[in-house]
Amino acid sequence: MLFETVETPGLAQRSYLIGSQGQAAVIDPRRDCEVYLELARKRGLEIRYVLETHRNEDLISGAPTLAEWTGARVLHGPNPAGPVAYAETVREGERLELGQLILEVLETPGHTDDHLAFALFDQDYPDGAVGVFTGDALFVGDVGRADFYPERREQVAGQLYDSLQKLLALGDQALIYPAHGAGSVCGSGMAERGFSSIGLERRNNPLLQLDREAFVARKLAETHYTPPYFQLMERLNLEGAPPPPRVLRPRTLRLGQLQGWDADHVLDVREPLAFLGGHFPGSLALPVDLLPAYAGWFVREGERVALVGDTEAQLHEAYTHLTRIGLDRVVGGVVDVVSAAAHGHACESLPTVDTARVEARLFRRDDDWTLLDVRAQHELAEGAIEGSQHLYLGHLASRWQELDPERAYTVLCASGKRATIAASFLAARGF
Amino acid sequence: MLFETVETPGLAQRSYLIGSQGQAAVIDPRRDCEVYLELARKRGLEIRYVLETHRNEDLISGAPTLAEWTGARVLHGPNPAGPVAYAETVREGERLELGQLILEVLETPGHTDDHLAFALFDQDYPDGAVGVFTGDALFVGDVGRADFYPERREQVAGQLYDSLQKLLALGDQALIYPAHGAGSVCGSGMAERGFSSIGLERRNNPLLQLDREAFVARKLAETHYTPPYFQLMERLNLEGAPPPPRVLRPRTLRLGQLQGWDADHVLDVREPLAFLGGHFPGSLALPVDLLPAYAGWFVREGERVALVGDTEAQLHEAYTHLTRIGLDRVVGGVVDVVSAAAHGHACESLPTVDTARVEARLFRRDDDWTLLDVRAQHELAEGAIEGSQHLYLGHLASRWQELDPERAYTVLCASGKRATIAASFLAARGF
Amino acid sequence: MLFETVETPGLAQRSYLIGSQGQAAVIDPRRDCEVYLELARKRGLEIRYVLETHRNEDLISGAPTLAEWTGARVLHGPNPAGPVAYAETVREGERLELGQLILEVLETPGHTDDHLAFALFDQDYPDGAVGVFTGDALFVGDVGRADFYPERREQVAGQLYDSLQKLLALGDQALIYPAHGAGSVCGSGMAERGFSSIGLERRNNPLLQLDREAFVARKLAETHYTPPYFQLMERLNLEGAPPPPRVLRPRTLRLGQLQGWDADHVLDVREPLAFLGGHFPGSLALPVDLLPAYAGWFVREGERVALVGDTEAQLHEAYTHLTRIGLDRVVGGVVDVVSAAAHGHACESLPTVDTARVEARLFRRDDDWTLLDVRAQHELAEGAIEGSQHLYLGHLASRWQELDPERAYTVLCASGKRATIAASFLAARGF
Amino acid sequence: MLFETVETPGLAQRSYLIGSQGQAAVIDPRRDCEVYLELARKRGLEIRYVLETHRNEDLISGAPTLAEWTGARVLHGPNPAGPVAYAETVREGERLELGQLILEVLETPGHTDDHLAFALFDQDYPDGAVGVFTGDALFVGDVGRADFYPERREQVAGQLYDSLQKLLALGDQALIYPAHGAGSVCGSGMAERGFSSIGLERRNNPLLQLDREAFVARKLAETHYTPPYFQLMERLNLEGAPPPPRVLRPRTLRLGQLQGWDADHVLDVREPLAFLGGHFPGSLALPVDLLPAYAGWFVREGERVALVGDTEAQLHEAYTHLTRIGLDRVVGGVVDVVSAAAHGHACESLPTVDTARVEARLFRRDDDWTLLDVRAQHELAEGAIEGSQHLYLGHLASRWQELDPERAYTVLCASGKRATIAASFLAARGF
Repeated sequence: MLFETVETPGLAQRSYLIGSQGQAAVIDPRRDCEVYLELARKRGLEIRYVLETHRNEDLISGAPTLAEWTGARVLHGPNPAGPVAYAETVREGERLELGQLILEVLETPGHTDDHLAFALFDQDYPDGAVGVFTGDALFVGDVGRADFYPERREQVAGQLYDSLQKLLALGDQALIYPAHGAGSVCGSGMAERGFSSIGLERRNNPLLQLDREAFVARKLAETHYTPPYFQLMERLNLEGAPPPPRVLRPRTLRLGQLQGWDADHVLDVREPLAFLGGHFPGSLALPVDLLPAYAGWFVREGERVALVGDTEAQLHEAYTHLTRIGLDRVVGGVVDVVSAAAHGHACESLPTVDTARVEARLFRRDDDWTLLDVRAQHELAEGAIEGSQHLYLGHLASRWQELDPERAYTVLCASGKRATIAASFLAARGF
Repeated sequence: MLFETVETPGLAQRSYLIGSQGQAAVIDPRRDCEVYLELARKRGLEIRYVLETHRNEDLISGAPTLAEWTGARVLHGPNPAGPVAYAETVREGERLELGQLILEVLETPGHTDDHLAFALFDQDYPDGAVGVFTGDALFVGDVGRADFYPERREQVAGQLYDSLQKLLALGDQALIYPAHGAGSVCGSGMAERGFSSIGLERRNNPLLQLDREAFVARKLAETHYTPPYFQLMERLNLEGAPPPPRVLRPRTLRLGQLQGWDADHVLDVREPLAFLGGHFPGSLALPVDLLPAYAGWFVREGERVALVGDTEAQLHEAYTHLTRIGLDRVVGGVVDVVSAAAHGHACESLPTVDTARVEARLFRRDDDWTLLDVRAQHELAEGAIEGSQHLYLGHLASRWQELDPERAYTVLCASGKRATIAASFLAARGF
Repeated sequence: MLFETVETPGLAQRSYLIGSQGQAAVIDPRRDCEVYLELARKRGLEIRYVLETHRNEDLISGAPTLAEWTGARVLHGPNPAGPVAYAETVREGERLELGQLILEVLETPGHTDDHLAFALFDQDYPDGAVGVFTGDALFVGDVGRADFYPERREQVAGQLYDSLQKLLALGDQALIYPAHGAGSVCGSGMAERGFSSIGLERRNNPLLQLDREAFVARKLAETHYTPPYFQLMERLNLEGAPPPPRVLRPRTLRLGQLQGWDADHVLDVREPLAFLGGHFPGSLALPVDLLPAYAGWFVREGERVALVGDTEAQLHEAYTHLTRIGLDRVVGGVVDVVSAAAHGHACESLPTVDTARVEARLFRRDDDWTLLDVRAQHELAEGAIEGSQHLYLGHLASRWQELDPERAYTVLCASGKRATIAASFLAARGF
Repeated sequence: MLFETVETPGLAQRSYLIGSQGQAAVIDPRRDCEVYLELARKRGLEIRYVLETHRNEDLISGAPTLAEWTGARVLHGPNPAGPVAYAETVREGERLELGQLILEVLETPGHTDDHLAFALFDQDYPDGAVGVFTGDALFVGDVGRADFYPERREQVAGQLYDSLQKLLALGDQALIYPAHGAGSVCGSGMAERGFSSIGLERRNNPLLQLDREAFVARKLAETHYTPPYFQLMERLNLEGAPPPPRVLRPRTLRLGQLQGWDADHVLDVREPLAFLGGHFPGSLALPVDLLPAYAGWFVREGERVALVGDTEAQLHEAYTHLTRIGLDRVVGGVVDVVSAAAHGHACESLPTVDTARVEARLFRRDDDWTLLDVRAQHELAEGAIEGSQHLYLGHLASRWQELDPERAYTVLCASGKRATIAASFLAARGF
């Protein structure tokens, strides 16, 4: 048997390839899907099925491409928004054979209306499911968000509760394989540990300790952020997106050429301290590992992007991230910031402030100065700072006019990375 | 958290690297152990502990080398054969902290007297063990052999039963991480599936469905083979073996030079059909993927080996296998069999016989002909062939004199590979 | 400056990437041309020019694909067969700037009418060309064949002589960069050494020691073979071929399924001794390293191919070779020959004969037996065997009916590989 | 034939592997020399000879290690400082056979007394040498420095002239293979182009246009820098250095632990702008690509080094560089600067100044301010800045007390990198 987890960094998305006796299935493939075909063929497996736990809203599905390359059937849950162009609809209880394995469809709405889980059975191990692909219903240490249908949040929270009971009923022995790990935008409470079982979740997952009523109340109280690019993902994953470009290396630009390319955004993907040390005026700091999570707040569908990085390898990584979320009109990339800076080409820096100074200012209550906290709502709960103003980083692109360009702002987050993003955004707008 | 399984092909051995918050532990490292240090350091983890579930008898431990490179503590169970030179002895109930994880020692004798399991706890998941490293006590679908102490087999089978109860007591939710997967010489009933939980094994593992008495009876009835190189492994793993050579590529020989190098064995690691098509007279067919399992039956400690392969990459693979079992006096390697054969250099071939002809001969009961079955005892159970003679492949090296060089033999196994090994062995002895 | 040679194994074709100060040119790209773009972008270079020394007849050009991906200009010599669809025509003396380098066009007809060489100058080294891309005009130790226009062979041989004088005039100091190395079907006398200079060739290349008359006579006396697939290459390289498939791994077949797939050819790409040891009846032996040179003799445009190999990696290599010569209708691949053979699935073997026995038979002049020599004409010159019959391996596909199926044939070549191909071909036709 | 160039980045050192008919030679191997053995064995070649053009002063030779691993003979020129412990001494005219190739020893003193070149002949190309390994005598566009024997500079410059004539006498056709490419500390005038021939150098290399007298005068007028670690290299390369550690990944430290490790130096190998944006107080900026060239000025033999980098991969690269120059007492590495900075851990930044402001200050002749130029002497020639003070970066470690800690300094170089190094050095000393 082959069992491989393909994790997509940045998005913390997990897809799976499972095979037995010459046949394979892929669960939730990402857009750049050569990896699944390579893995399967290397092991002499034919991909017969592509299973989607739900219509992904945070990344482009590779299902249509993989189906075209292999002739595999794509299976998807019943989608009220209309048929998924490249998939067949499957229903509760349908069973797929895969060598000595069986995959059984479980309708598990809540996160989305079309959400499925796939219970895994092994004919040699007849007593109980051996595992379950839980999609965005159940994570290690958390459950899926249930806020995508604002007008009926209470209903879908209840549906999610019922779906989770269906998963728990598979038995403590079953391993779980969710569609996301820690670090995803699809949930903030996921555990650092990558593996789990139904039994471990039943006993320890905080959400699974609640009764239906308390569960619904808890889900209604949660706040989640929904970046604008989710809409693009939803449309593309209904229609079927084309495969990504074959070569994910942007054209080489020089700093002096940047204007000529008429990019809508110059994204500086270097580490924050390098950005602070010197950067191209007007560029937006988006450290490469945060690109998947935050580019979708600042870049809109169809906008042209130029990239600034340390190395060509970093530009390649950034480009790859962008293709996975469909924001891949990359006009070119720049790697000569250091030498441009040394030659006096327009280069700006941003000062950092240490904690002691911030505390002193807060204490003095400086009149013309504001500490701007750009962390997420749930982080505030862990420690809000008195006297600070809160505006979530993701919302900055749409709500920055609420701030006063005449004031001095010091931006704060947990790691310094998001504060740099925010500071770069405001600096480019004259703050 | 980092959790990586490092599987050693051929031996089907599994070792693990687990890390949390900057600290890591390695369970049952193999001899070529750069891989663990690379994985850990890439993720910013320091290896603090090297845990051995037992003194391995089928491969060389990398624990002493890894300890020397990292300063890690090596922990081992109480070994009646004397202290393990490079390790500290730990006892039931000792607990090691590793970031937010805890590893707890479980004494689990049976497979060997010094056998330990390590239960894994996650401080964020307080209710129940999240997993357990089961060593050679419990596999997916099988349990460890209990025949290493012939004079007290009944006692150790009972100890193994008790150790398994201790593992079951950890709860259905706990995942299991054994030291071997399907294909190991340490057990023949392992499942194809690589992952499992205590619950899955409790419900489905055939050995765990028995009571103590039936379990002991079953274990006493089992036959296992013990290749001679196990003794070498036991001694080296008590003393601590040195690291393997840095470059695992043998010197290049030409077929004409083979005699000059005065090798004790010429091992032809090509695929069986290639060997049958043409090979160097006197060479032993040992297809590279079977080398870990069968080289230890034919090559003794300190003997010199020359390798014959298709490609340099295949020689590299063969050499790597041999270093893992300590039979690494490789004097050189040859890749020019095809051209040597074409130039009329001594090259022999062996005929294959199809099933129909074998059946006809068996039916006719040819007097001067014997069908020799070299499969393992447990395979005979699945279908012995009437009229055939049985001699296990591994025993051929010590018992071939029992056969009659004047008779014609046709050798049989399940896949054709082991039959080729046996045929090559006999042909080299004038059969 | 970047200078990279990309060698295509099997075809012994050489392409080049050269870059300076942010700009790059590719000379004679092969069909799978991601490699050039990756290399260039990694070094911050934009590919501005794709230069073709001539319309390749032995492999598919990657120029149209590379041009589409980069916007580069493709430059080609004046082609009497009509305009090259994806290229601009350049003429003697045109100069391209590439950072501090200059490439100058030299019309060098002879091998083909449209043949160009590109002399390379470095502005920092003004005295003399630093190198020259010689295409198929001048190789290390040989010159190009001049037999593609049968009706005017004398004329083109003379043109080639004149073109070579033009290259020699660049001066002894200039390095040469030909389009082929040793092992190409485009010339048999190429030296093992990969590098050379005009001076080295002027002094040592046997063809360059001749005067015009002797040169023409020598070229007219040469015999070259022209596989039928050359016509396909010529057409595709005039029109522009599409890029190869993204994933070059064939579908997995089982030996039992081969008939079901209705392939026109079953190509067994394993090493010859493995084929001889056991193979699928009717399959053609084509060891993977000989595939580029010989597949084009046996497989015609549009025919469906199934592959038999040792490993999936070998199938991948075979598939890659086939895409480079446009014979890539690969319906699937098989890797389970050994186990199929063991299970008595139709499997045949071919006997080898050692030199002593062949000599005895030749001496005895066996009446019903023929030694068939399938080597190339120029090899016969080095040692023809009295009493043998000659039929070039490549011609077997079209001329095998000249042989007598009632006779016994022993096939001979230099390395045993081509003899195996021929024997497999004849065996499949009932010989 | 195999011909491979192994280039060592940072040091711009070039070593070569050349093989023919089963035998190979390595010219000037670096310390981490698995690469040569891997390359040779992959191609079925035995390394018979290790040739040293001279006792390297800028990096550790891998010759003793390679000899031990392969049994190869190490050949070295006659060394007046005493015998090279691991080598045989060879003399003018000795010839080594290597398959169809011949290597002939040319004594070529000047750069060092023991300097050899190795002319390469091909038995199939009898007329003229096909190439020559020129060591540090002749580069592409430059010749070796001749300042290592200060008391007899005139004599050795003349010797170098004579040695170069010997090389030129090999003929225009011969290719040259020097021990360094552009970017080496062994010469500043090397061309960007990586390949050349005797003819190209004879016609274009500026040093080869001079007569003996002018040549000697020119060499005497050159200034070169000699980092203190050269002495260590010379001693180690006489005695033979041990192989480098097997795993070149430093222990993981946290910023808070740095003091605990009691390192003599904290080297920050990130890019300059990141250092300027925020760094650990007292650390020395040494961007990883400059480490080979400048670490030897600041770190002395036996001193302990802690590394600060962006990523573990960068630390690995830095560690690898340090082992090549023997400064490899690496106590650990840090990658958490960004988060440490965000948490207010002691973190300092350095301001950059743009060219306009520098010009204004120079114009105003600020009394308490100095523009410090740390470029090399030969760069000053291309454009010294009036009013600036010059102190070569390499000399800062020994001569910084000449500067006035009370003054404000702005440091200048060509690319901004070396200025950052100097600024970090001075800042750590209270400037």
